[in-house]
Amino acid sequence: MALSGRVLVYGGKGALGSVIVSSFKAKNYWVGSIDLAPNEQADGNVVVKSGDSWTEQEEDIAKGVEMLLGDHKLDAVLCVAGGWAGGNAASKEFIKNADAMWKQSVWTSAIAASLAAKHLREGGLVTLPGAQPAIAGTPGMIGYGMAKAAVHQLVKSLAAENSGLPANSAALAMLPVTLDTPMNRKWMPNADHSSWTPLEFVSETFHKWINNEGRPDSGSLVQFITKDSKTELVIA
Amino acid sequence: MALSGRVLVYGGKGALGSVIVSSFKAKNYWVGSIDLAPNEQADGNVVVKSGDSWTEQEEDIAKGVEMLLGDHKLDAVLCVAGGWAGGNAASKEFIKNADAMWKQSVWTSAIAASLAAKHLREGGLVTLPGAQPAIAGTPGMIGYGMAKAAVHQLVKSLAAENSGLPANSAALAMLPVTLDTPMNRKWMPNADHSSWTPLEFVSETFHKWINNEGRPDSGSLVQFITKDSKTELVIA
Repeated sequence: MALSGRVLVYGGKGALGSVIVSSFKAKNYWVGSIDLAPNEQADGNVVVKSGDSWTEQEEDIAKGVEMLLGDHKLDAVLCVAGGWAGGNAASKEFIKNADAMWKQSVWTSAIAASLAAKHLREGGLVTLPGAQPAIAGTPGMIGYGMAKAAVHQLVKSLAAENSGLPANSAALAMLPVTLDTPMNRKWMPNADHSSWTPLEFVSETFHKWINNEGRPDSGSLVQFITKDSKTELVIA
Repeated sequence: MALSGRVLVYGGKGALGSVIVSSFKAKNYWVGSIDLAPNEQADGNVVVKSGDSWTEQEEDIAKGVEMLLGDHKLDAVLCVAGGWAGGNAASKEFIKNADAMWKQSVWTSAIAASLAAKHLREGGLVTLPGAQPAIAGTPGMIGYGMAKAAVHQLVKSLAAENSGLPANSAALAMLPVTLDTPMNRKWMPNADHSSWTPLEFVSETFHKWINNEGRPDSGSLVQFITKDSKTELVIA
């Protein structure tokens, strides 16, 4: 059976990433995963060394992806790496947390952008992990907000002319409010889970965008707004 | 003669910082400078070690500023540190330059925010270095745009409730298009210099804001738009 296509999932061992890997495998895609640990379901893995610098990570990952792909082009680079930490400007952990947020969200997103510039097919898709709250100020989680704001602006840069992406490709940011992950269930057992976005919905949406079904304009910040267990996509 | 007040200039040895230091000294302020080299005109200096990590820099600078200030409060923390580097997503130097931009603009701005949380007086001012182009995408200078977008969002966080800043203080971003610095004159000798913003204008504007003359609402991104050698402040 011919492949449906090829996608690379950055953060492919995380909660959302794992769902994306298995859902694209089920749709007969070749799936590569980049993460701190391999995803055994993926067709290929690039394992990142967490102690490395940004440029070291980029070099290692670039080499690893080249080895996996050879001359094949990608239909999509789906970056869902990230994390969360709080803290305001008076917090003791402010700088430490801001540093972690930058590494988890912006190092990964920028490396994903650089991989997309090299390996995406014309008309391909790159998605990056934004956050709905970071559209405004985020005083209780300042480092998180800065990192996500940088990702939002990166998407706008990638959508502009001469960004380095192949012709007709689209760069989109996914801005969830709260994703329905096992960790969020564990830490917020009594929250209103009907306002959380199911991971499968995100994966299905990415699949539609790859196939140009309802793909928003490149550069869009796409909010995933879930209410009564129904998710709407709202461009910010 | 009594002091007019106390200000801390982050990047006090740079082109804009040096003008701010001398102009506030001339107005009889106590002026502290933070930079990679001391500014001899300043009343006190904290010299930053460039090889240090973000958290190491923050710790060292926090100690240094505490020693300089004792129990005195600051009227303003004026952060004008930063730099410039280009590169799109396909550029070889993309990640290296993005890393440098983050360190020069965001490490400094976040540390300035943390100093403001500790040492600013009620009703004080913190200004951070934004950039007018980063309001939209910046495909030819992606790392620069991401860093400045993070600074813009930081200002919005600082302006919000429970950001950690003292009551009634204001956080503002200065968004120049091009500053009239010696380096810019050197590299762009044939540009239209009448559209560049004079450094003295920025310094005078900061002085007015400290004294609540025309101080924009906290959280504002204040564009400095210069045309025919006249500068207008336009909130983004």
